[in-house]
Amino acid sequence: MFREARTFSHWQERPVSKALVDAAYELACLGPTSGNCQPMRLVLVHSPAAKGRLLPCVSSGNYEKVRTAPITAIVAYDREFHELLPRLYPHTDARSWFTTNPALVEETGLRNSSLQGAYFILALRAQGLDCGPMSGFDADKVDAAFFPDRRWHTNFLLNIGYGDRDRLHPRLPRLGFAEVARWE
Amino acid sequence: MFREARTFSHWQERPVSKALVDAAYELACLGPTSGNCQPMRLVLVHSPAAKGRLLPCVSSGNYEKVRTAPITAIVAYDREFHELLPRLYPHTDARSWFTTNPALVEETGLRNSSLQGAYFILALRAQGLDCGPMSGFDADKVDAAFFPDRRWHTNFLLNIGYGDRDRLHPRLPRLGFAEVARWE
Repeated sequence: MFREARTFSHWQERPVSKALVDAAYELACLGPTSGNCQPMRLVLVHSPAAKGRLLPCVSSGNYEKVRTAPITAIVAYDREFHELLPRLYPHTDARSWFTTNPALVEETGLRNSSLQGAYFILALRAQGLDCGPMSGFDADKVDAAFFPDRRWHTNFLLNIGYGDRDRLHPRLPRLGFAEVARWE
Repeated sequence: MFREARTFSHWQERPVSKALVDAAYELACLGPTSGNCQPMRLVLVHSPAAKGRLLPCVSSGNYEKVRTAPITAIVAYDREFHELLPRLYPHTDARSWFTTNPALVEETGLRNSSLQGAYFILALRAQGLDCGPMSGFDADKVDAAFFPDRRWHTNFLLNIGYGDRDRLHPRLPRLGFAEVARWE
């Protein structure tokens, strides 16, 4: 899930079972979110018609990756996630933290849908699938094409399939522990 | 890492090896970030003096959790992460995407340090450690206490140790796949 996995740009033609994606979500949803808020929402784009709506929204460098991936997930967050908090976090009135604070909604939605998106990436890998997350797209265009009421907002895109290892480049450098962390 | 793991609020007195935290980072840093930007920065608070600076910044509900955890990590992002992009993403001038766009710096920092924070949570669990992530704190106060130049900004706090399973509550409900996802 960490060492062998890579971000893929090229995909085998092998199809992806919907059941594996569902199983990955069932693992990923167990990961922690603040106040159990779970703001992540997903559109799993796989039909030619839906791909045709998504492709004009992505950068030129991501066009072929999205066109050829068996699935491109739109990883979004629900700007009304707090309406579910009476059910998800029932022991206090967590909903009221958000109803009059739209900036907190956006920050909490972005933070926690990113956490959940990372759990989902690792859970997809745990199902034997490969991923290719992307930020090179126009979020306003994706929102307009898939979320016309703007209740959901796109965080990042995630290609899903079986990657072509023969076309991987060497891994880019990582920052070492001593560069990013200190003990106090 | 997913099914058995839980968010812990109570901790065994068993100490935590620094080498395990380092090893968890070495796994977590392999996870993908946009443009390989790796904005996450960590302060691993364990000394009584540093805990004493952190405790006045956390909510009353998190006070005892932080006080008793062997380590509380401050998961932050570097607002100048883009200065490293010539080394981390050398094939294009990615640094220039950020130098005149502070809003993009904040959004990219929050998104990607959250992704990296999630990889770190799962990697700590892979080392046999338990976690307790928290958003109940005053980020301005933590920044003032630990990052007085405001170059790093606190995203969330993360208790690390060996959790006390006897004091866990039942897991809170999760949203089902059909509630959050659709195929298109």
